[in-house]
Amino acid sequence: MEETTQHNLLSEINSPEDLRRLPVTALPQVCRELRDFIIDACSKNPGHFGSSMGAVEIVVALHYVFDTPYDRIVWDVGHQAYSHKILTGRRDKFDTNRKLDGISGFPNPNESIYDAFIGGHASNSISAALGMAIATELKKDEPERKVIAVIGDASIAGGLAFEGLNNASINPNNLLIILNDNDMAIDHNVGGLNNYLVDITTSRRYNRVRNNLYQLLKRLNLIGEEHRGSILRFNNSLKSLLTKQQNIFEGLNIRYFGPTDGHDVENIVRILQDIKEMKGPKLLHLCTKKGKGYEPAETSPTLWHAPGKFDKETGEVLIDNDPNKPCKFQEVFGKTLVELAEQNDRIVAITPAMPTGSSMTYMMQRFPERSFDVGISEEHAVTFSAGLAKEGLLPFCCIYSSFLQRAYDEIIHDVSILGLPVTFCIDRAGIVGEDGVTHHGSFDLSFLRCIPGMTIAAPMDEHTLRHLLYTAQAIEHGPLAIRYPRGGGEITQWHCPMHQIPLGKGRKLCDGKGDIAVLSLGNIGTAAMHAIEKARHKGIEAAHYDMIFLKPLDEDILQEVASCYRRIITVENGTIVGGLGSAIIEWLNDHGHNIRVKRVGIPDRFIAQGTVAQLHKLCGMDVDNIYEILTTEW
Amino acid sequence: MEETTQHNLLSEINSPEDLRRLPVTALPQVCRELRDFIIDACSKNPGHFGSSMGAVEIVVALHYVFDTPYDRIVWDVGHQAYSHKILTGRRDKFDTNRKLDGISGFPNPNESIYDAFIGGHASNSISAALGMAIATELKKDEPERKVIAVIGDASIAGGLAFEGLNNASINPNNLLIILNDNDMAIDHNVGGLNNYLVDITTSRRYNRVRNNLYQLLKRLNLIGEEHRGSILRFNNSLKSLLTKQQNIFEGLNIRYFGPTDGHDVENIVRILQDIKEMKGPKLLHLCTKKGKGYEPAETSPTLWHAPGKFDKETGEVLIDNDPNKPCKFQEVFGKTLVELAEQNDRIVAITPAMPTGSSMTYMMQRFPERSFDVGISEEHAVTFSAGLAKEGLLPFCCIYSSFLQRAYDEIIHDVSILGLPVTFCIDRAGIVGEDGVTHHGSFDLSFLRCIPGMTIAAPMDEHTLRHLLYTAQAIEHGPLAIRYPRGGGEITQWHCPMHQIPLGKGRKLCDGKGDIAVLSLGNIGTAAMHAIEKARHKGIEAAHYDMIFLKPLDEDILQEVASCYRRIITVENGTIVGGLGSAIIEWLNDHGHNIRVKRVGIPDRFIAQGTVAQLHKLCGMDVDNIYEILTTEW
Repeated sequence: MEETTQHNLLSEINSPEDLRRLPVTALPQVCRELRDFIIDACSKNPGHFGSSMGAVEIVVALHYVFDTPYDRIVWDVGHQAYSHKILTGRRDKFDTNRKLDGISGFPNPNESIYDAFIGGHASNSISAALGMAIATELKKDEPERKVIAVIGDASIAGGLAFEGLNNASINPNNLLIILNDNDMAIDHNVGGLNNYLVDITTSRRYNRVRNNLYQLLKRLNLIGEEHRGSILRFNNSLKSLLTKQQNIFEGLNIRYFGPTDGHDVENIVRILQDIKEMKGPKLLHLCTKKGKGYEPAETSPTLWHAPGKFDKETGEVLIDNDPNKPCKFQEVFGKTLVELAEQNDRIVAITPAMPTGSSMTYMMQRFPERSFDVGISEEHAVTFSAGLAKEGLLPFCCIYSSFLQRAYDEIIHDVSILGLPVTFCIDRAGIVGEDGVTHHGSFDLSFLRCIPGMTIAAPMDEHTLRHLLYTAQAIEHGPLAIRYPRGGGEITQWHCPMHQIPLGKGRKLCDGKGDIAVLSLGNIGTAAMHAIEKARHKGIEAAHYDMIFLKPLDEDILQEVASCYRRIITVENGTIVGGLGSAIIEWLNDHGHNIRVKRVGIPDRFIAQGTVAQLHKLCGMDVDNIYEILTTEW
Repeated sequence: MEETTQHNLLSEINSPEDLRRLPVTALPQVCRELRDFIIDACSKNPGHFGSSMGAVEIVVALHYVFDTPYDRIVWDVGHQAYSHKILTGRRDKFDTNRKLDGISGFPNPNESIYDAFIGGHASNSISAALGMAIATELKKDEPERKVIAVIGDASIAGGLAFEGLNNASINPNNLLIILNDNDMAIDHNVGGLNNYLVDITTSRRYNRVRNNLYQLLKRLNLIGEEHRGSILRFNNSLKSLLTKQQNIFEGLNIRYFGPTDGHDVENIVRILQDIKEMKGPKLLHLCTKKGKGYEPAETSPTLWHAPGKFDKETGEVLIDNDPNKPCKFQEVFGKTLVELAEQNDRIVAITPAMPTGSSMTYMMQRFPERSFDVGISEEHAVTFSAGLAKEGLLPFCCIYSSFLQRAYDEIIHDVSILGLPVTFCIDRAGIVGEDGVTHHGSFDLSFLRCIPGMTIAAPMDEHTLRHLLYTAQAIEHGPLAIRYPRGGGEITQWHCPMHQIPLGKGRKLCDGKGDIAVLSLGNIGTAAMHAIEKARHKGIEAAHYDMIFLKPLDEDILQEVASCYRRIITVENGTIVGGLGSAIIEWLNDHGHNIRVKRVGIPDRFIAQGTVAQLHKLCGMDVDNIYEILTTEW
């Protein structure tokens, strides 16, 4: 463990201007204090610990060298930006991180002028920063501002980031890209070479090699001085060759610097000062370590990505091990998939960088050759699944709802037009809680419902999830989306025999004795169930149907409801625009029924962070509000 | 002009097996006959001419060397695949290309077993083919099959293609990627070097250089033999260095071959035979010329991309120059944008590779520094626009509706959460006609409507389009989508003074005297107007409202309609699931009105190709069907 510091410097830094008044030699101390602050804060109030610990020096150096907020720093995925929040006036509010009415876990311009752009979904920083950099070139009446994108090595593999890189050199701009590289997947052996290459651009050895090569190629007439840019590309190619690094930047006309130690803050400051006035797009490659400065996190970076509460002295993660607590939907999904894959050898599993969160890890351990973690590449994940399905395999493609938005065209064009049997396992559907506005899975029901031939299901409980997964591989019917929320349901004994469910068939949970029926979709139906029970004590006996499927709708249920009841409450964990409620209202209209419908779901506005329970309440999706609607005249 | 051939060989080729029975020396003749066939067919029945002419040798060589259909060829954007269709049993149906009930202009597995995947939207081939290639590794009970992706140099810049490339070397597979490179943008000077490098891997000179370099680096201890793959990367780096080509493949562990002449069919066959059994992912870079073999097309490739009908003898494109024909919406958009940009210097324009089709070319000519064609990069186009908007500019981002699906997450995450004033100019909205199932803009109304804060408008006529564009830059209200169809409206005098329209305000076109009101959105409202006129002769006087906005809805109109009429017909050029009709039914329900609604729009199924008029009829969106609904009891 690090020894505790008194935060003598940090407590005086209320904005980056205060930071910039310090001598450069004080920065290592600021970094130590920041780490100490983050360890203390995250041990009590869980957050994205590992990435933020790794980026401390990058944050300090950038705010030290650049004139923020006039200069813009765009953080790609705000995990890494806790120090940034702490240095930019949010130190004393940091205990509200990720809480209702507190500060967001991700950068958000609506929260602070220092948050130059939003950073919840990966890979957007280069494109956004490029737009901002070009804007500063166009706005000739304002002094030039610097724009910096800070992107991790996982995010830079996303298609959007590549499109940004590919466009970076087309128009005049001074974009600086910082590659925060904490990759552990790439061969560890190159680590030694990295150190040697820290300052390769100024090393005598490099220059000697460079000259020898250059003369040789020139003698052979293979390289000339007549082409502008050829020298630069020559240098980059050579550097790439020597480093044996997978360097894709050289071909894209982006000046490349590094790799260098991302934890040597004084050196980073020196390099940034050297390159900040250089014209044209440029990339500085910094090597960092996830969890840097806290030994347990350095040793087990995956566990410490977002560890939950922990004892900062012992490094013990405080896991809630209550055996009576229901299993998470993720856990049920992951283990059920393995069960099915053991029976059906055509099942394959795909996820774009969400194996742990989605519990696809079980499948990866059991059937590594049939499991594909494709990195941050949602589009590829879907089209790749389509290719697998086209050849007769049964892909289960596991993506969080809000990230599935990235693959919308691929769902339509590559899967649905061909009617391929890809099963979309849509995790984190509906309100997700602390991750907030960028991460709620609000829209999938609506954006999938308009796709012809798409079957859309949402299990109310873990058993139904298992039956749906079983059904998906048993019938191979074309695209099938199964959505379920983050976390647990209510069943502790989730393991049950599985059977096939007819597509588009829901179930009646209870009959009603009044004029009102509740039609729910997914796990939020348990809130409806509790509300109905509560209302029963008040003499209001509402019917309850678990629709299971949004598409196709169960028309038998709808016929029954339309003939027996005069009022319907629809309950779904998704936007009320275009989802279950809309589908039912459309059906009632099309079939000439004059029945009033109240739609319970996520309202048509963006929802910030909070606990799931708090946000359900805020959205009127909680037991109390449904009870209120049940027991009030309308 | 080429001399006419008799198609002696082609007329006998009814499947690739027939092709494979020919001696390799006959292939140039097959290619000549194919070109002649395509020239003849496209001169009478318009299609994507230039790309298909350029890919003739690639098609012939692939079918000659590989065992299709057992081996799979995945065409990225089917423009290039006309010869493929002709050789695979569709020669005699080729006169139905892009016609109703005819063959599709793009590859589609539903049409032919030889079409291994769908190829309407760019950049999907590598991911799909990779899935297919890995499937063949997993299916141990079937003989191994080869999988080939053929991708153009424009498509390979898309983010999805990059994600595919980035994943290509991760799992065992034998994917072959053919890069069909007809780029004219890259420096022409390198052309001479290209020829030299055709066979660089076997040239004595290359090997001498390679050896010298290798020994030098080894002596300096900068490269060793201990790392698997370092030799390959060394070769690729060297090749990249020598070619001065922007080669991004070397870093991705994909074996790279080429560049070589994509019109020397016998040589391509030889190379393919050499590399087809090589293990691991590999890329063959072929240089081709758009329009190859037809001189007018070689000279003006942009015009000849999809020239419409032409006189094959004279090379004269038969343009319809009727001055009384209404201007296209695209034309009005393009010219109006320039007018506005002249007044408002904060306006900037962005398009991902659709400048000509969308008429953004006018803006590019007048204000090149404020116009950005970012290539096939829909995601980047949107996030880049967000960055420009964040710094106070007013981006008009012009994308075809079906391609906007690619940027769905960016619309939500990067634009809408921040409420940035990006104007989405959504071209090709609704039924597009001959491009068919992959290109209809069916879903944008539904997938945009569920986004909080998104304003969605669709002009009924060219004047309204101008007012909407004016309004977008006058009020800077946050994200605004303006959608309009392919082609022309009904107004010939489109140039009018522009004024601001209040957001969410529609207009009444005529009062009704019966119980029925028509609420339409967009240019399809003219069909409703004609149907209403026609019904008036039958004594049925329906009211007609042009909603202009889908979101926010004009509640004053809805109140008026709800109090005056008992039946509503909604008319929109988009899917009936979740669009205008759904929004109005939701509103009526929420406000307790018992009014029947008939929704006219694109039904909930995929629609193939045909003329716009044919498909409107097929979908019941034509004057006759609306008239039918108006004059029938329901």
